[in-house]
Amino acid sequence: MNIGIVRFIIGWMLEFEAAFLLLPTLVGVIYREVRISLVFLATSIICLLAGFLLKQRRPKRRDLYTREGFAAVALSWLTMSAFGALPFFLTEEIPNYIDALFETASGFTTTGASILTNVEALSHASLFWRSFTHWIGGMGVFVFIMAILPLMGGGTTINLMRAESTGPSVGKLVPRVKDTAKILYEIYIGLTVIGTIVFCLCGMNLYEALTIIFGTVGTGGFSIYSDSVMRFSPLAQNMITLFMILSGVNYMAYFCLISRRIKDVFAIEEVRWYLGIVFGSGAIITWNIHKLYPNIWDSLRHAFFQVGSIITTTGFSSADFDRWPELSKMILVLLMFIGACAGSTGGGIKVARIIILCKTIRKELAVMIHPRVVKKIKVDGRPLPHETLRATNVFIAVYSFIFFSSVLLVSIDNFDFTTNFTAVAATLNNIGPGLAGVGPTQNFSLFSPLSKCVLIFDMVAGRLELFPMMILLAPSNWKKY
Amino acid sequence: MNIGIVRFIIGWMLEFEAAFLLLPTLVGVIYREVRISLVFLATSIICLLAGFLLKQRRPKRRDLYTREGFAAVALSWLTMSAFGALPFFLTEEIPNYIDALFETASGFTTTGASILTNVEALSHASLFWRSFTHWIGGMGVFVFIMAILPLMGGGTTINLMRAESTGPSVGKLVPRVKDTAKILYEIYIGLTVIGTIVFCLCGMNLYEALTIIFGTVGTGGFSIYSDSVMRFSPLAQNMITLFMILSGVNYMAYFCLISRRIKDVFAIEEVRWYLGIVFGSGAIITWNIHKLYPNIWDSLRHAFFQVGSIITTTGFSSADFDRWPELSKMILVLLMFIGACAGSTGGGIKVARIIILCKTIRKELAVMIHPRVVKKIKVDGRPLPHETLRATNVFIAVYSFIFFSSVLLVSIDNFDFTTNFTAVAATLNNIGPGLAGVGPTQNFSLFSPLSKCVLIFDMVAGRLELFPMMILLAPSNWKKY
Repeated sequence: MNIGIVRFIIGWMLEFEAAFLLLPTLVGVIYREVRISLVFLATSIICLLAGFLLKQRRPKRRDLYTREGFAAVALSWLTMSAFGALPFFLTEEIPNYIDALFETASGFTTTGASILTNVEALSHASLFWRSFTHWIGGMGVFVFIMAILPLMGGGTTINLMRAESTGPSVGKLVPRVKDTAKILYEIYIGLTVIGTIVFCLCGMNLYEALTIIFGTVGTGGFSIYSDSVMRFSPLAQNMITLFMILSGVNYMAYFCLISRRIKDVFAIEEVRWYLGIVFGSGAIITWNIHKLYPNIWDSLRHAFFQVGSIITTTGFSSADFDRWPELSKMILVLLMFIGACAGSTGGGIKVARIIILCKTIRKELAVMIHPRVVKKIKVDGRPLPHETLRATNVFIAVYSFIFFSSVLLVSIDNFDFTTNFTAVAATLNNIGPGLAGVGPTQNFSLFSPLSKCVLIFDMVAGRLELFPMMILLAPSNWKKY
Repeated sequence: MNIGIVRFIIGWMLEFEAAFLLLPTLVGVIYREVRISLVFLATSIICLLAGFLLKQRRPKRRDLYTREGFAAVALSWLTMSAFGALPFFLTEEIPNYIDALFETASGFTTTGASILTNVEALSHASLFWRSFTHWIGGMGVFVFIMAILPLMGGGTTINLMRAESTGPSVGKLVPRVKDTAKILYEIYIGLTVIGTIVFCLCGMNLYEALTIIFGTVGTGGFSIYSDSVMRFSPLAQNMITLFMILSGVNYMAYFCLISRRIKDVFAIEEVRWYLGIVFGSGAIITWNIHKLYPNIWDSLRHAFFQVGSIITTTGFSSADFDRWPELSKMILVLLMFIGACAGSTGGGIKVARIIILCKTIRKELAVMIHPRVVKKIKVDGRPLPHETLRATNVFIAVYSFIFFSSVLLVSIDNFDFTTNFTAVAATLNNIGPGLAGVGPTQNFSLFSPLSKCVLIFDMVAGRLELFPMMILLAPSNWKKY
């Protein structure tokens, strides 16, 4: 592997992180949290220096194949979390470094799983940074870098973007990678701005609106309050539901919208399935929980809030769904695995892959019944490339492998099966809360450092769709040549 | 579909079931259970008549493609369970018919999940029949029929055998289907006879030895006592462990043994992996539970007993493993999914498929790291046919689909997640006991009739490796042509 270029790319990323850290510094200044603000400034300088040092020696060769792209992105995300955790640790707001790392990785990977028992104890600057990490990680830091810099000017940068983008087949919206990255961030910023305005109109102050929209469009789920978003008005909660569901849509749909090809939006099969699953699950849960709430509107609101929150892998909660009937909980657990649309900021297996699997099953049965029929799997009216089908199958295999290995390792802590199973499901799918010991009113502080490290691995692996992290574990990847 | 031949095949099966039912009739006579004995005789006559009626009209065409073979076997297994449940129901030993059906399907599919709270209350004849269903289902009723009858003399009978045999690629040991079936039953009967003698030498009486060996070589798990096999001596338990592990081995290995090709046994990769998993899991669990038992020998005995029982999907228990530490329980849950070797009487996903999945992952990572390397997946030194790889992937997809749909339906009963999850895992993988509400000291009587029907479906689907049952659900299969 070309280690020189991997080092160089991590350096780039650190310089951008230095810039990002100036935002919470500013928030600290506004809220007169001088000491906290200085810590953020210091961390920013540390990142800048580290980035500068890593970029000192220019890489001899510029080749950036899949292996380098994947390794660089995976290592960057780990480094980004390691440095991003410093303010929490240095301000002693999270005195244990592993905990701070868990919290930051959970932020960048848009998981939203927290080890904090009392969120309100943190300063404004730190809570802002905590939510802002969601926004950075949601669309991806390299997509951001590529949108504003001609990073090494090459076409091979697609390998960095592929590592950060979601879905079985990463498509470019327009021929050039840089333009695609730009359009994605324009849509992303558009959603963020509209959301902030809407939230403010619903009665939030600007600080609340900004932090909550970061967690919404990034499908993260960190709130600035311990009770997630339960304290906000029903109207505000419904608006959060709306923006969560919008953030789980394939960004291709928004690209069609802004290109005024409205008919094409509904031609995207994945979007139809996604909305179908949301409405179907929401309806069943509304019926299943209607006895728990005084009127149908409350049931509707809580059902759709939780469905939107879980399928998009955001992880906000408007109610303690751990107390809901088992059927509703099971539907939510299933939604954890299904996840959002490919090409969105959400996590999970992705609706696109579920469609491919369902169509494979249907095709195999058809062939069994009518052996002479030649049938091809079609998605959006086009035959599915063999490569995508294979990639989907391999994804499921790797996914199961990581999932079950993680449950095994976490079970050493001796918590109950539901806690272990949903803790891994909630981190590998980048959701946040699970059930039982990690339910919406609980947190992840109960786990041992070993389990926390496993869950950090799962969060990053889930966000980067497994392979970038898997490649780090392959010894043959580290041979120099 | 050629419905005529399907009807004809079900008729054949029923006539054989009539013959099988004479055995418990005889046991009833020996133990002077006159009324019970008469019920078994009556059921036998009912089966004979039903079979005779179904076979009255000869099918016009003799074509037996995959669809007819699979549908015939799936319907036969359901019919076999429906008629086999009659004695329990008519003697009022299991007064609810759904319960009786559950118990019988659990028997034929070698699951061993029971709805009985007091096993000892049943007559000798009924308990014998209950265990004998394991023996019939273990190797398969059509494999049995084919071994002794030239069923329609055709080569297409391989489609019946394919539906009943396990593993990603069903191989014939010798060129002719009939001879393969004969050899398989010879080995099966050999194991049964040796096991019976060994168990008798360990202090069981003949009745105990026979019923327990039926559950062991068939990898079923029904015992004639409510405490499973906990009352037997440590030596007897160790012998059960041995025979369980032997029954989970690919029968190809025994075929090599009796053909005096001993070197070939160890060349079968699946057998090496299987034994590796057994010893690895056993060692970890022994260490994990050593504080619970007075000495290392007890820990070793219980650890290996449970590992052998779960990986071969038998389901006997020598201890209440629901009280073991979470790590041990989690290993057992994983073993539930892995299952036994392909070509054995055990259930689960099968070690062969796990090997294929692991090798696929390794290959994909290698290709990612060295794009120019051409790598083929090899099993037993031979390149894996593309067809087998595809079949494995489709199997996993269908498996996940059935698994999660079942958990969803069972969760309507509102039991806890661990109970629902392991109940489905224990039935779809044909094991028997799960954890929590369906743990080794509990039983399946708590579920609603709907859940019981779902679990019956899962047991049969698991035993026949999914597709025969899936094909029954496809409407297009039932068109006549």
